[in-house]
Amino acid sequence: MCSDRIRLDSLRSKIVTAEQAAALVKDGMVVGMSGFGGGGDAKVIPRAMAERARQEALKITLITGASLGSGLDGIMSEAGLLARRMPFQGDPVLRKAINEGKVIFIDQHLSHVAELLRQGSLPAPDVAVIEAAAITEQGHIVPTASVGNSASLVQMAKQVIVELNLSSSPHLEGLHDIYLPAARPQRQPIPLINPSDRIGAPAIAVDPERIAAIVLCESPESAATILPPDDETQVIANHLIHFFEQEVAQGRLPANLGPLQVGVGTIANAVMSGLLNAPFTDLEQYSEVLQDSTFELMDAGKLKFASGCSITLSADCGKRVFPSLADYKDRLVLRPQEISNHPEIARRLGVVAINTALEFDIYGNVNSTHVCGTKMMNGIGGSGDFARNARLTVFVTKSIAKAGAISSVVPMVSHVDHTEHDVQILVTEQGLADLRGLAPRERARVIIDNCVHPDYRPALNAYFEEACARGGQTPHLLEQAFDWYTNLEQRGHMLSY
Amino acid sequence: MCSDRIRLDSLRSKIVTAEQAAALVKDGMVVGMSGFGGGGDAKVIPRAMAERARQEALKITLITGASLGSGLDGIMSEAGLLARRMPFQGDPVLRKAINEGKVIFIDQHLSHVAELLRQGSLPAPDVAVIEAAAITEQGHIVPTASVGNSASLVQMAKQVIVELNLSSSPHLEGLHDIYLPAARPQRQPIPLINPSDRIGAPAIAVDPERIAAIVLCESPESAATILPPDDETQVIANHLIHFFEQEVAQGRLPANLGPLQVGVGTIANAVMSGLLNAPFTDLEQYSEVLQDSTFELMDAGKLKFASGCSITLSADCGKRVFPSLADYKDRLVLRPQEISNHPEIARRLGVVAINTALEFDIYGNVNSTHVCGTKMMNGIGGSGDFARNARLTVFVTKSIAKAGAISSVVPMVSHVDHTEHDVQILVTEQGLADLRGLAPRERARVIIDNCVHPDYRPALNAYFEEACARGGQTPHLLEQAFDWYTNLEQRGHMLSY
Repeated sequence: MCSDRIRLDSLRSKIVTAEQAAALVKDGMVVGMSGFGGGGDAKVIPRAMAERARQEALKITLITGASLGSGLDGIMSEAGLLARRMPFQGDPVLRKAINEGKVIFIDQHLSHVAELLRQGSLPAPDVAVIEAAAITEQGHIVPTASVGNSASLVQMAKQVIVELNLSSSPHLEGLHDIYLPAARPQRQPIPLINPSDRIGAPAIAVDPERIAAIVLCESPESAATILPPDDETQVIANHLIHFFEQEVAQGRLPANLGPLQVGVGTIANAVMSGLLNAPFTDLEQYSEVLQDSTFELMDAGKLKFASGCSITLSADCGKRVFPSLADYKDRLVLRPQEISNHPEIARRLGVVAINTALEFDIYGNVNSTHVCGTKMMNGIGGSGDFARNARLTVFVTKSIAKAGAISSVVPMVSHVDHTEHDVQILVTEQGLADLRGLAPRERARVIIDNCVHPDYRPALNAYFEEACARGGQTPHLLEQAFDWYTNLEQRGHMLSY
Repeated sequence: MCSDRIRLDSLRSKIVTAEQAAALVKDGMVVGMSGFGGGGDAKVIPRAMAERARQEALKITLITGASLGSGLDGIMSEAGLLARRMPFQGDPVLRKAINEGKVIFIDQHLSHVAELLRQGSLPAPDVAVIEAAAITEQGHIVPTASVGNSASLVQMAKQVIVELNLSSSPHLEGLHDIYLPAARPQRQPIPLINPSDRIGAPAIAVDPERIAAIVLCESPESAATILPPDDETQVIANHLIHFFEQEVAQGRLPANLGPLQVGVGTIANAVMSGLLNAPFTDLEQYSEVLQDSTFELMDAGKLKFASGCSITLSADCGKRVFPSLADYKDRLVLRPQEISNHPEIARRLGVVAINTALEFDIYGNVNSTHVCGTKMMNGIGGSGDFARNARLTVFVTKSIAKAGAISSVVPMVSHVDHTEHDVQILVTEQGLADLRGLAPRERARVIIDNCVHPDYRPALNAYFEEACARGGQTPHLLEQAFDWYTNLEQRGHMLSY
């Protein structure tokens, strides 16, 4: 039975049901799970754990790669299973529980989680639950559509549970490159010079004795919901592509733009799709989540290689790509998120980082996480890993939201995830602000003139001018700085008039 | 004449006066200068440039390593020489001009400046003015007490002016290790595994043809003003050392703590001095500025090696150390600030980063730069380079300032330089907050209980409790979040009662 999927005979005796595997998880445990952005998560064991939590006292700390797909975070949250959750999530049910203070959420840079675990700053997992495409002759685990934190979680967990997904593509094997930095001191440089370099092993090494259970399933990969580009995301993409053309012409970017990192979501995906009609070829991606656009660009002969830590596709794209993975395999690699997002590599390669902002302010500080400064959206994710170390750091957003009730450009952001020091290019459908080499007052001028929606420009100009009259390196009117948020809450619109 | 100091004969014909050298600088030029934290800056040429600016239209963009000593930034600012200044300063006269909007100041991470120059994000220098201890047989420049950005500035400047300081110690030669990352793509890993590794050359390579002028001088090194530890800085040091002892006992830090980075200034220096009486031996420093404490710890046999990009000493300590540099030389190295502060190295080595905060908030966001959110103090300096990539990120400050009128712990910081994601340990004389693995609400509890001055604790508790009642991942009362600053401005005290 499934001898090609479990190639170490002795492990076959460990096959159990999802319920039996879930029973290994005890109240109060720290559980590590595979999964990043909806790619590669275990599917039946989390459901079985949630089922148990509905019937008995079972609360866990859950550490994953990033967000989970298939509504799993919502299911586990609703069942009361989650006491603590890290480092990222994107589920509306869990989000509500977090903002009500019912689930403790630790929002952390995705490249740092493995390091924090390794050095004892986060609790070591008791159990790691990892979705696999196969188990090798050595008992090593071949991941599915993501690597995420799986290798580190397996390395550090007391027990490992494998969820073997028989419906996953057998061509996933060979796609992964598992490399983890050694303990300090005497840690060596990460020997990665090009996005396509393979520096590790094709599977996650584990002593087969530590595999406590194997659960077989045939769950489909969860599908990402990506809205198609609209007029505004198209215009944002065009602004950025025009800027890239100028940078290449002036010799500040290589002809292929250098390795691209593009965040998850509709706007970022639209920017990537915009490259379909741009004059750049031999593109390379050094990113975290590979979305539909990666494969569109490959099919169009524009993208020559993509390195990520996860593949998350829409239902349509998944139906096309996963069965023909063999055709893409020599142009793809999936790495641990510690490596895909590592500052050492982002800086060495000169990654161009394009991420979505929730809002930014007139001085270039970016909020990626907190609505009105208090309510968590998803988390910082990998944006800080790349923004801080990239060759060029770009944030994109539409200039307004909620039919104009909200301006994405504000006097002062209510929460800072990326400081003025780390933000170089801002783009809305209104235009592009190039902040390189500018001081705060100069940045404000460029941002207001280029990125702000016309409805909000007079109010921002008034704020800025009054603040400048008071002086300072970064002029502000602290007593008014957050008025737009209180207006929004009290009157449903950021402007009071 | 000075054949040991200028060892390439052909260069002797380039010796000119400071005034002649200063005349090479034209209005509107970008000038790069050596100097970091007061160590290794050219001294007579900047004065001659300032003199010219008093008599004719002469305004420049000045790029240095970091702050300059001997009041030079003030002298140049007062003369009207400075139009734009980057990436750091610490001079009261210049600070005033910056906050009045008279000098444009670009405050930037110190490890990023060379990269920004290299990729054309900052303007290339027309002239580099570099203090030297000697010029080698090849015409290469031996720096003095700092490397800073000198190697990059020399590499990129059209013309190089050397200020040869005949009073500098001849033993400075051999102290420096000049390594610059290559252009991308195909940039290699930085081959530095231990703080003591030497990976480059002892002098700054330059085609002698590009040396436009040499000015001889005998200026003393400028002296740092470091206040001696007081009761409160002593207590801060003790809290941190006690914490380190626990971390070592629990195996989370190595017995020698791993490479230490300690920021510039009185509190940070006091923390280092506190290690004199702590049980740790074989200490190593991987830092930027090496202060008095480095040499105190070496003399006491506690510190085995120190890597930095600058040496800045008090007058007394300088008198003792500079003449006997030969005795310390095998335990010291000075690197370009790009390397001393490089994220790749900080992360690989597992640096413990200790820096001073201006203020922090109940959720762990740190302000290092802006008084009341608007007025620049000095700049972010290297704190972000280390904080973002360290094994352990510590910020220290006294809990109150101005005789209690100001609390260093506030509901929400008015400017964010280091986000909650990057701050792990906060220390005041009141105690230490260990934020590792905690969510915002948990952090607030630990910070208020451990770090806040008793006079401010009730007010912060009231703010936090009222905010929590409203909910959210990071509860805030946006309409009151900055009241403490407006109270301070209007009534001279942060509390209104």
